[in-house]
Amino acid sequence: MKADLRAHIEKIIPLTDEEFDFVISHFSTKKFKKHQFLIQKDEPVHYSYFIITGLVKLVFTDESGKEHIVSFAMEDWWESDFYAYYTQTKATMSLECLEDTEVLCCTLEDYKKLCDGLQKMERFFLEKATFGFLGSQRRIISWLTSNSKERYEQLLKQYPTLFQRVSKSQIASYLGVSRETLSRLSS
Amino acid sequence: MKADLRAHIEKIIPLTDEEFDFVISHFSTKKFKKHQFLIQKDEPVHYSYFIITGLVKLVFTDESGKEHIVSFAMEDWWESDFYAYYTQTKATMSLECLEDTEVLCCTLEDYKKLCDGLQKMERFFLEKATFGFLGSQRRIISWLTSNSKERYEQLLKQYPTLFQRVSKSQIASYLGVSRETLSRLSS
Repeated sequence: MKADLRAHIEKIIPLTDEEFDFVISHFSTKKFKKHQFLIQKDEPVHYSYFIITGLVKLVFTDESGKEHIVSFAMEDWWESDFYAYYTQTKATMSLECLEDTEVLCCTLEDYKKLCDGLQKMERFFLEKATFGFLGSQRRIISWLTSNSKERYEQLLKQYPTLFQRVSKSQIASYLGVSRETLSRLSS
Repeated sequence: MKADLRAHIEKIIPLTDEEFDFVISHFSTKKFKKHQFLIQKDEPVHYSYFIITGLVKLVFTDESGKEHIVSFAMEDWWESDFYAYYTQTKATMSLECLEDTEVLCCTLEDYKKLCDGLQKMERFFLEKATFGFLGSQRRIISWLTSNSKERYEQLLKQYPTLFQRVSKSQIASYLGVSRETLSRLSS
């Protein structure tokens, strides 16, 4: 489990054993069952999460009560309501398990200590934030340039295993199309 | 002009005079006329740009030749085809001036030297990348939850001055609606 985080960081930056001991001392472990919430809307956001095993969905609920899936996150991904986390404000989204999920948790205080104490980790988080931004930009370009059928096919190509792990309703919510439209696309 | 960059960085992290001299030594200045290109599609991307004065548009052109505005950037913003910049691959987008524009330019090599030489700047870029990611996430949520009229109103509220500086066709391209739809929304 700790090895997962080390392998994940070392894809970007090599660490000595002492450095990794320092890194891991800033994380705690939590386990959640399917349907449990890691973050509830309107509650404080205590952690960012590195997912060891499992699958979660980040959900924005609009004024009419309709749920919109902002992102899925699975093994080796980081997830949180990051705006609320960084600004220490209340969550505007919820984070819910779609499978039994095990995570490593990092408080904002520990995140700052980690960056202050080991410059390599600041470099690591800079690279993750940069490529997180680029991933979001690619999704925006996809919205601007593609119809729902094309977006469905892009998602299938990019994350084929996701389609075996989540329902069609969830995929539809992520793509911003109705369940009926998705059924037509995927048939 | 240099003072603009210093004030911009110091919103996040204070710098001594010596530190700022080190920072600014990694930038060069360029001036462009309206309609000139800072980045051309399929060409190498040499710089990321900090905009001192002016306004630029980042454009993705789809297979049918239609232009989609991915973002606008004006005073105090950073812009580039960042994927091509960070990975040193050819541009998939173009960056064009909508007004006469003056920029500070930073090569990837100088960006890395800056981060290596002054940890404060790595902290600064981490904060910019993080909030860049959060801005993109907010735009994705806006696409998922809002219709074109609501997205038009959100943009008007967030960037009122933009509407005095760019044409309705440009706003329509950014919002992913037709010029006719936008005329109906803004009338």
